[in-house]
Amino acid sequence: MSVKVQFVTRADLFDAYRAPLGAALARAGISAALAMDHAPEEVDYIVYAPQSDHVDLSGYTRARAALGLWAGVETIVANPTLTMPYARMVDAGLTQGMVEWVAGHVLRHHLGMDADICRSDGQWVKHLPPLAGERRVGVLGLGELGAACATALAGLGFDVAGWSRRPKEIAGVACHAGDAGLGAVLARSDILVLLLPHTPATENLLDAARLALMPHGAVVLNPGRGALIDDAALLAALDTGRIGHATLDTFRTEPLPPEHPFWAHPRVTVTPHIASETRPATAALVVAENIRRGEAGEPLLHLVDRAAGY
Amino acid sequence: MSVKVQFVTRADLFDAYRAPLGAALARAGISAALAMDHAPEEVDYIVYAPQSDHVDLSGYTRARAALGLWAGVETIVANPTLTMPYARMVDAGLTQGMVEWVAGHVLRHHLGMDADICRSDGQWVKHLPPLAGERRVGVLGLGELGAACATALAGLGFDVAGWSRRPKEIAGVACHAGDAGLGAVLARSDILVLLLPHTPATENLLDAARLALMPHGAVVLNPGRGALIDDAALLAALDTGRIGHATLDTFRTEPLPPEHPFWAHPRVTVTPHIASETRPATAALVVAENIRRGEAGEPLLHLVDRAAGY
Ligand SMILES: NC(=O)c1ccc[n+]([C@@H]2O[C@H](COP(=O)([O-])OP(=O)(O)OC[C@H]3O[C@@H](n4cnc5c(N)ncnc54)[C@H](OP(=O)(O)O)[C@@H]3O)[C@@H](O)[C@H]2O)c1
Ligand SMILES: NC(=O)c1ccc[n+]([C@@H]2O[C@H](COP(=O)([O-])OP(=O)(O)OC[C@H]3O[C@@H](n4cnc5c(N)ncnc54)[C@H](OP(=O)(O)O)[C@@H]3O)[C@@H](O)[C@H]2O)c1
Repeated sequence: MSVKVQFVTRADLFDAYRAPLGAALARAGISAALAMDHAPEEVDYIVYAPQSDHVDLSGYTRARAALGLWAGVETIVANPTLTMPYARMVDAGLTQGMVEWVAGHVLRHHLGMDADICRSDGQWVKHLPPLAGERRVGVLGLGELGAACATALAGLGFDVAGWSRRPKEIAGVACHAGDAGLGAVLARSDILVLLLPHTPATENLLDAARLALMPHGAVVLNPGRGALIDDAALLAALDTGRIGHATLDTFRTEPLPPEHPFWAHPRVTVTPHIASETRPATAALVVAENIRRGEAGEPLLHLVDRAAGY
Repeated sequence: MSVKVQFVTRADLFDAYRAPLGAALARAGISAALAMDHAPEEVDYIVYAPQSDHVDLSGYTRARAALGLWAGVETIVANPTLTMPYARMVDAGLTQGMVEWVAGHVLRHHLGMDADICRSDGQWVKHLPPLAGERRVGVLGLGELGAACATALAGLGFDVAGWSRRPKEIAGVACHAGDAGLGAVLARSDILVLLLPHTPATENLLDAARLALMPHGAVVLNPGRGALIDDAALLAALDTGRIGHATLDTFRTEPLPPEHPFWAHPRVTVTPHIASETRPATAALVVAENIRRGEAGEPLLHLVDRAAGY
């Protein structure tokens, strides 16, 4: 009897995952039929990365779990027909990619690289940055991604503080938690990195009042979610120079519409949601391990807490 | 009896070092007179960072050592009147600054940041880099700076190889040495970092033949010395696209003359010799330790090997 795995994804994702997932399941001794067109009521596991947020899963009456290919879960929590256990993607490749994007853009702003990259006017003007130990970086969100980024930045010598909902301990990182901790982290962040999930509690977290707590000229990096930031408040803070630069990878509407003021603003860098991507080679192993666990009656990894919203 | 320390430097360096060096010597129990105008024949130690390469030191008949404020030593080796032992600057702040510049510019090229930084045309075009583990970085020169940079890049996940004159072992770095090793490192360097000293053996090291060994589209970073590269050969390789980009911090003539083709070349980034700078707070401690050693009859640190030229 073979396990029926349905891909509720774009066809190209089915193509990309089919071979590595099949191979990983075979290595685990599991005979599986991977398809996009099983009859819903016969499906055992759903691999989930839908094109639309409004996919109706009510026909999947015996599915034991939905196994996501994405790290973010706001659309899952919002789908009332997705009632089976949901495991999100936590993947070493995804984490590594995010660490590279965050370390690269923190160093870029720290070193003041843009001046050299975009200018070539023959003017030899020295601009010596302080050492990383004198640059205060704040990381909001200390989960899989935030903790790895905070650790990497501390390893590069930056003075790093972080913030999460529940108290944490991370070597080399000054950890703060809860509402009281947020102001302290904002007030000392020359460079702020947003790696929170989008939930009702984090929507518009970075609003005018919170931006006003930050050091003058601070830099904001947002590889988390667009909805974490009040766009109008950020644009106003950029216009006055209170915020010196924003490098944004995530937006309320993606692709970011061509007429959105972020594109043309001289103090904004747009990256097209490329901070990190799930990599099939490593992510397939995560999905396979959860199917193995499901078949063995063991608890699944990376289950989403629907009450917390992430 | 107080030790006479002469600053053969610009006046602003005397101003910057006077207080921290005096304090460090006092802590070591050494009474010292720091000045720019001692009579040469009475001077015990020279602090050396001259404005001109042709300073005549033949009057310093009793000076026990010259203690440099610079990491590079090509002008020292070339000064026939500088006959006393010469210790160059090796400073934790200098090394840390270089690691930050190198890590930042390697990540910039690895991530393909320039496209996002310099473009804001409303075009949402995803360009996903490989993970660092699939990016091969070569570091030529594995001394104080090269070894620290290679280690930091390996820590960020890059696939790092290095090259030095004598064989070395560095954790996480594939080390090559001697003439035979150079071709192997060049052939596998998607990004190449030059951290060699300028000596007769390294002058024009990166010439047309060696550039031709590198992967098509490779990136060259030169925070070492301008003379390591044959400028004309590099420009030719950039024109054909064989070399995809060069980010240069050091030049044969500095400041780089406004008419030099590096300024205007679309595939060249010029940074104005800012990759790393000696920092008085930490460097003064290095100078003080060498004076303490000199007075105690202990061997000096960081002595230059004049025969090797560095
Ligand atoms: N741009 C991209 O390419 C990309 C790629 C992947 C992911 N992402 C984004 O990155 C986000 C983070 O991913 P992850 O894997 O690190 O998530 P995670 O492991 O669930 O971590 C979330 C972190 O946010 C904290 N948090 C959540 N709600 C909070 C609140 N109300 N107040 C304070 N802290 C709160 C959590 O605190 P606790 O530790 O106390 O639970 C946790 O530290 C994702 O949700 C997604 O939006 C972006
Ligand atoms: N841009 C800036 O702001 C800046 C700042 C400071 C320094 N620098 C430059 O960086 C250079 C390196 O500094 P460092 O402190 O790392 O010097 P270092 O400790 O003397 O190391 C030099 C390295 O180059 C290797 N080397 C020398 N000649 C060689 C040859 N002919 N073939 C192969 N390898 C050779 C040495 O090999 P062995 O290990 O076998 O001896 C050593 O690994 C300095 O000379 C200076 O030019 C630039």
